[in-house]
Amino acid sequence: MINTAILGYGTVGSGIAEVLTMNGELIAKRAGDRLEIKHILDLRDFPGDPFESIITHDFEDILNDDSIKIVAEVMGGVEPAYTFTKKLLQKGVSVVTSNKELVAAHGPELIAIAASTNANYNFEASVGGGIPIIRPINTSFTADEILEISGILNGTTNFILTKMTAEGTSFDVALKEAQDLGYAERNPEADIKGFDPCRKIAILASLVLGKTVDYNDIYTEGIDKITPVDLEYVKKLNCALKLVASLKLLDEGVFVKVTPLMIPMAHPLSMVNDSYNAVFVKGNAVENTMFYGRGAGKLPTASACVADMVDSARNLGKNVKIDWSSEKVQLMPLDNTPVNALIRVKYNSEKDARNACSEVFSGCKFATLNHCFDEFAVLVENETEGSLSEKCAALKEKSAVSDIANIIRFEN
Amino acid sequence: MINTAILGYGTVGSGIAEVLTMNGELIAKRAGDRLEIKHILDLRDFPGDPFESIITHDFEDILNDDSIKIVAEVMGGVEPAYTFTKKLLQKGVSVVTSNKELVAAHGPELIAIAASTNANYNFEASVGGGIPIIRPINTSFTADEILEISGILNGTTNFILTKMTAEGTSFDVALKEAQDLGYAERNPEADIKGFDPCRKIAILASLVLGKTVDYNDIYTEGIDKITPVDLEYVKKLNCALKLVASLKLLDEGVFVKVTPLMIPMAHPLSMVNDSYNAVFVKGNAVENTMFYGRGAGKLPTASACVADMVDSARNLGKNVKIDWSSEKVQLMPLDNTPVNALIRVKYNSEKDARNACSEVFSGCKFATLNHCFDEFAVLVENETEGSLSEKCAALKEKSAVSDIANIIRFEN
Repeated sequence: MINTAILGYGTVGSGIAEVLTMNGELIAKRAGDRLEIKHILDLRDFPGDPFESIITHDFEDILNDDSIKIVAEVMGGVEPAYTFTKKLLQKGVSVVTSNKELVAAHGPELIAIAASTNANYNFEASVGGGIPIIRPINTSFTADEILEISGILNGTTNFILTKMTAEGTSFDVALKEAQDLGYAERNPEADIKGFDPCRKIAILASLVLGKTVDYNDIYTEGIDKITPVDLEYVKKLNCALKLVASLKLLDEGVFVKVTPLMIPMAHPLSMVNDSYNAVFVKGNAVENTMFYGRGAGKLPTASACVADMVDSARNLGKNVKIDWSSEKVQLMPLDNTPVNALIRVKYNSEKDARNACSEVFSGCKFATLNHCFDEFAVLVENETEGSLSEKCAALKEKSAVSDIANIIRFEN
Repeated sequence: MINTAILGYGTVGSGIAEVLTMNGELIAKRAGDRLEIKHILDLRDFPGDPFESIITHDFEDILNDDSIKIVAEVMGGVEPAYTFTKKLLQKGVSVVTSNKELVAAHGPELIAIAASTNANYNFEASVGGGIPIIRPINTSFTADEILEISGILNGTTNFILTKMTAEGTSFDVALKEAQDLGYAERNPEADIKGFDPCRKIAILASLVLGKTVDYNDIYTEGIDKITPVDLEYVKKLNCALKLVASLKLLDEGVFVKVTPLMIPMAHPLSMVNDSYNAVFVKGNAVENTMFYGRGAGKLPTASACVADMVDSARNLGKNVKIDWSSEKVQLMPLDNTPVNALIRVKYNSEKDARNACSEVFSGCKFATLNHCFDEFAVLVENETEGSLSEKCAALKEKSAVSDIANIIRFEN
C-alpha cells in the first residue's frame, strides 16, 4: 500500500478520488501497489461524502505524516499551493499537479527540489487535461528536434468559436451559453483573453527548449474581438478559426504567440471542435503529429493526475529527470516574427481602397462577402508583425479607407 | 558513448542512421550519453555510403561485440529477426524494433527474456510508425480502464480510400496510383487484405489486456471489395470510409476486428486522410482521445526507433516492465459481436424489396442514390454479426431481392 493525499477537494480533487476508487485494482497492478488516499485537504467539510472522515483543514496533518509518499496538488493558483508543494518536495514526497499557474510560475525550481530529494514533480494534467502531451514530449519525441508545437489548449474558447461558426451567433451570446453549460467561469477573463493557454504553451515551450519561457513574454490575444462577420470570411476561405498557442523554432530564433488563427480545413487542428483540445507537434524526423482529447473536465483531468501518481509510485525514491532549467529563453521580438493576415478593410471607395491595398501590400489577394457593401478583406502573406502593423497604419491613412475592422492571422 | 548496432540497412535502418547523425547532440543530451553506431548488418554492400565501413554481413560480429548495448532490429519478417533478437536479449543487450510481424508472433516471449536479463525490448515503431502510442498505453493511460482502441493503422489503404472518395476512382486505379507513388508494395496483399493492421491491433490489444491476443483469431476484412458506389452512399450519409482495426471491451467480453468502417464526420477518425494513421483511445476516465501522425515512412518510423533507443539508454541494466503475458485472450465469437451495417440491396421490384427489408430488419432505414435504379441501401443497427448474416441470407431468398451488392459496417 502506498499512502497518498489530495490537496483540494474541488472538481479535479474529487475526480482523483473517484478514479482511484473506480479503477483501484487496475491502478494497483500498474503502480505495483495499491494507492490509498489517507488525507484530503480542503477548507470545507463534506458531510455525507464517502471521504468525509479523512478531510482535514490543516496542511500540517499531511506534511507531518511520514507515511505519505505521493500528494496530488489540485488547489489551483500560486499560493498556498507553491508553499505546500515546496515543503512536500523538500521532504522527499512526490507531488503531481494540474496547476498550470504554479507550474508556469515556479516549474524549474520545483523540478530542481524534487531532483535534490529523489522525489518527482509531475504535471501532465496542467496542459491539455487528459491528453498525454507532457510525457510524450519527455519520453517519446526524444529522437527529434521539435520545430513547432501548436495547441488548441482552452476548451471554453474552442466551444465558443465552434458555436459562433456553426450558428453565426455573436461572441456574447456564445459566451453566455458556455457559462450556462458550465464550460465558462462567471469571470471568464482567463479563458477568453487567452491567459490560460498562454501559461500552458509556456510550459510546453519550456519543456521543448529545456529552459524557461516566461509567460509574461508571450504575446497573447484573446477571442473577445471576434465577430460573426470575421467567421464568414473564415468559412468562405475554407478554414476554421481557432485560438492557437504556438511555439516555432526558426533559423532566426524562437517565438511563442497566442492568437486566434485561421487554419485550412486540411490541417488536423481545424477539426478540433466543441470543448476538445489538441496539440499539434512537428519534429524534424517524426514530421506532423497531433494529440487530441478532453482538455478539461473532472475525470479526464483526474486521469492525467492519477497516471502521474502511478508514475511516481513506479519511481519511489528515484527522480526521473525533467529537462527544464530556470535559465530564461530570449524570444524573438514580436515585431520580427512572421505572420500572414486577413485584414478587413472598410472603404469609402472600393476601387480606390483596393488600389491603396495593392500599393501597400504588393501582390495581396482579396476576398469579399456578398452582403457586405462597405468592406472587403485583404490577404497578405510573408509579413512580420512589425511590417504588418506599419502597413496597416499606412493603409488607415488612405482617404479611400475608412477603417480596419479586424485583423485575423492565418496559417498556410 | 553507448555503442549500438542496426540490423537491416533498408528504409528504416538508413533512417535510424540519418536521425542519429542529424540530431546526434540533442539525442545525446536526452539519452545521457552519445549513441554511436558501431555495426550495421545487411546482406548487401553499400559502396559510397557514409556508413560503408561498418557494414557487416555476419550477425556474429554484433553478437560477439561485448561493447554493444542497444540494437535496432529493422529487418522485418519473423526469421532471422526472431533468432537474432532472442540471442541479443539473452545476452542482456536491449533491442528496439519496428517489426510488427515478430512482435505480434513472439512479443511476450521476447519481453520475458528481456526482463530476465535486465535488458529492454521496445517496439514503439511497430504500430503507427512515428505516432507515440505504445508508450502512452504503457505509461500515460495507467489510471484508466481502456474501453476501446480504434485505429487507422495502414497508410496504404487509407491513401487508396481517400483517393477513391475524393476522385470517385475505382479500387484498381487508386491501388495503381499508390504503387506508382511508392505507398503500396508491388504485392500489396498484406495491406489491402488487412493483414498488416491485424498484426498491429493484436499488439495494441495485447498491451491493453496484459495478455496475448492472437492475430490469427482476429476477423479481418480488407478494402479490395470497396467500390465507388459504396463510397457514394458513405458520402451521402455524411460519413467517411476507413479501414479500422478495433478492440472493444464490453460487459459480454472482448472483441477485435479489422474491417472497412463508415464513420460519421463528427468522429475524429473521419478526418484522417491520405497516408496518415491515427489511433483513437477511449478510457473510462480520460474519455475520448486520439493520436495522429505518419504511420510509416523512413524518418517518422526511425524517430520512434531512436526514441526507444534513448529509452533503452536511460534504462541500461534496468528492465522497465511491460505487462504482456503469453496467456491467450479468449475473444468473443465473431457471431456474438455487435454490428451496424449498410446493406446494398439490388431489387427486381423496389416496393416489394423494401417491404421484404422491413420484414427482415424491423425498423430499418433506407438510403438511395439518384442514379441507381436497381438498388437501395438498408441501414440496420444493433445486430450481431451472426444475426446480420442470417438476416441477409433470408433477404436474399426474397423474390423481390435480386442480390446483395455489398455490406458496409458503420459506427454511430
